[in-house]
Amino acid sequence: MRKDFNNHIENKLSILKESKLIIAISGGIDSVVLAHLCHAMGLDIALAHCNFKLRASESDKDEAFVVALAETLGVEVFVQHFDTQPYSETHKCSIQMAARELRYDWFAELAQQLHYDYILTAHHADDNLETFLINFTRGTGLNGLTGIPLINNNIVRPLLPFSRRQIETYVKAHQITWREDASNASRKYLRNKLRHEVVPLLKEINPQLLASFQSTMTNLKDSADIVEDSLSNFLKKALVADDQYGQTFKVVEFKKLSNPKAYMFEIFKHYGFTEWNDVMNLLEAQSGKMVKSNTHRLIKHREFLILADLEPAENGETSILIEADNKAVETPIGELRLEDVEVRPETSKNSIFVDKDLVKFPLELRLWKAGDVFQPLGMIGKKKVSKYLKDEKVSLVEKEQTWVLTSGDKVVWLVGKRADGRFKVTENTKQMLKVIVR
Amino acid sequence: MRKDFNNHIENKLSILKESKLIIAISGGIDSVVLAHLCHAMGLDIALAHCNFKLRASESDKDEAFVVALAETLGVEVFVQHFDTQPYSETHKCSIQMAARELRYDWFAELAQQLHYDYILTAHHADDNLETFLINFTRGTGLNGLTGIPLINNNIVRPLLPFSRRQIETYVKAHQITWREDASNASRKYLRNKLRHEVVPLLKEINPQLLASFQSTMTNLKDSADIVEDSLSNFLKKALVADDQYGQTFKVVEFKKLSNPKAYMFEIFKHYGFTEWNDVMNLLEAQSGKMVKSNTHRLIKHREFLILADLEPAENGETSILIEADNKAVETPIGELRLEDVEVRPETSKNSIFVDKDLVKFPLELRLWKAGDVFQPLGMIGKKKVSKYLKDEKVSLVEKEQTWVLTSGDKVVWLVGKRADGRFKVTENTKQMLKVIVR
Repeated sequence: MRKDFNNHIENKLSILKESKLIIAISGGIDSVVLAHLCHAMGLDIALAHCNFKLRASESDKDEAFVVALAETLGVEVFVQHFDTQPYSETHKCSIQMAARELRYDWFAELAQQLHYDYILTAHHADDNLETFLINFTRGTGLNGLTGIPLINNNIVRPLLPFSRRQIETYVKAHQITWREDASNASRKYLRNKLRHEVVPLLKEINPQLLASFQSTMTNLKDSADIVEDSLSNFLKKALVADDQYGQTFKVVEFKKLSNPKAYMFEIFKHYGFTEWNDVMNLLEAQSGKMVKSNTHRLIKHREFLILADLEPAENGETSILIEADNKAVETPIGELRLEDVEVRPETSKNSIFVDKDLVKFPLELRLWKAGDVFQPLGMIGKKKVSKYLKDEKVSLVEKEQTWVLTSGDKVVWLVGKRADGRFKVTENTKQMLKVIVR
Repeated sequence: MRKDFNNHIENKLSILKESKLIIAISGGIDSVVLAHLCHAMGLDIALAHCNFKLRASESDKDEAFVVALAETLGVEVFVQHFDTQPYSETHKCSIQMAARELRYDWFAELAQQLHYDYILTAHHADDNLETFLINFTRGTGLNGLTGIPLINNNIVRPLLPFSRRQIETYVKAHQITWREDASNASRKYLRNKLRHEVVPLLKEINPQLLASFQSTMTNLKDSADIVEDSLSNFLKKALVADDQYGQTFKVVEFKKLSNPKAYMFEIFKHYGFTEWNDVMNLLEAQSGKMVKSNTHRLIKHREFLILADLEPAENGETSILIEADNKAVETPIGELRLEDVEVRPETSKNSIFVDKDLVKFPLELRLWKAGDVFQPLGMIGKKKVSKYLKDEKVSLVEKEQTWVLTSGDKVVWLVGKRADGRFKVTENTKQMLKVIVR
């Protein structure tokens, strides 16, 4: 196996030869073999061991084993203790999930601070097959079946092409010692069921199962790459805006596709939608229809689909009072500041100048609502805010996120859009007030 | 189940309601239930049963059962006897493959001759899952994992969303009788191993396995559709010629891709190539390099990849003698005809006129070879055929497939390209001979 391992590094992972590597090591057979193989090849490695303190003295013996191994190999070793149980309670996640998060966070930190280039983990072909079967039994899609990646950011899995059996043969041949993980048998019910019951049956059917599986993985990854190309080409045509108000897609581009649902699923799957038929139906729906997930909305608006956050009303504060002595107030649309000023420089979208004696404190910053009326600066007479926004062809989502600054029952500023003429600075103004939102 | 079945037909297969249907029926539980359900729904069905004569009297009892069922249901029945064993020997295929071919050929014939619209088979969700697992254990790609299609040409599988258990429950509830397939237990080793050993374990892991599986299938089919779109968009740019000499692709379009191998595999996978690394390397190879399969060649030619049949030399005759009294001879490039003519109409690419007294029979039609020299009509002096073809910028594959007609050691015609001036018709010609290839 050593020769195969070396060839594999030379051919597929030659970058590791000129890099500083951390090996994530539990003390179990896989990671111990990985450490030995890397060391034998002369790679520049250090060991990093997490003690999750989940198995009392066993955990400490694992740690001692790893420290001793580092000494034997003559490489540096890092050990970190974690309070996994409390973490899982605070973060409301399983012990396994907690251990996983703590582990990867620490590795990332180590790598960054000590200038290591890659973190190596000991996942092998059988792990990969088990992951495939787990995802498959739960129900998944193409990306759930493409397996564990060989390289993912700075995490590399050099043992991925090798089987559990090859690793077992290697330890026997080289009389390598390692620590049995006592939790293996009990904790990982699902993985063990697959490992000890399902996979052996599949290997009876095809003794070359792992080799077949690897070629299946390669093929599926290639297909996934083609899917990604296709999506990115599609988005070049369909995605016409991507800004603070959300992403805007041209409906007609979806309609040109032979299977629009396939693309809608791929594009919107990360936003928590579950009612895919409703999502599909948006293509033909009336303007104004929408489908919501727990975090997002997908809105049909004329010939567009808009992916946006939930309405501001569902997201937080919608009204803030501003007193005369507030110099700076945090608001959902940024910091609002009041400044007494002497001279009036250029105006901008983000600020207005008003006659301080004409406004009554507290001012209120709130979302505009139906019935709001104002007197746009420079216009004679009043106009409904709704009509103003419509005439300005303001987009649906932008409209929802338009705020007004009011003084009593009067609009002072349609924020970011238009000041109200009734508060404007005139020759009679004694004190100018600048209102800025940024 | 009857209600679910009816809903499924209404929603997904309503086309069946206005069609004439043949049900492929073995007499086993699945196809018998399909017949009952279709009949109960009032669909326009006939039964078609194949007697493969593989299980002696059991086969005949199956046949009798189906005929009786047709009578009970009051529908037409077609029965065909097959000599499966001899067929499998003649066609060098397995008994199962033979039965499959005979079956589908007969159904297609029946449907066409008697104007049936669709052939219904009784594949269900468990069959689909087993097929997935079979393909998976053998090693496959995306298309091998997308399952049995609900509709494929005129073959429809209305039971695909239903489980074996639902079918079993239905027969019990309605006291439906059917014939146990005695071969089930023994013959189909692989399928039975999956059915009775692997699938039950997977269902222990996830009792909703079939539902999860169906959504996985839907997702994978969607991905496969996206892949197909991507390939067809790619070919619009990359495939610059598709003619008798093969398909010509622009190398630069492959090189623009992030994963060229994925596309090369999808595009060339049906042509028997196995050495995919060699295929990949063609992109960077010198002009003239090629990779062969048993049936095809992929050739790097300047900035193109050409997919072509194997060279003519590997494919058949390369030299044919033509006697003076041959009026018409079959050749690899079409029928060659000799005609004594009086007047000379317009010339064309496919024919020449020569002075009959200047040529010596037998003429020979053969592939050109290095060293061939001729005197192109209208030119003074001689020219190597190789130089002529190069100057004319004839493509690699066309060059290989260029034939010459010779008289003794002289070229009379570079067929389809240029006559030789030495045999041209002059004022002294007594008898004109027209040579035509078409």
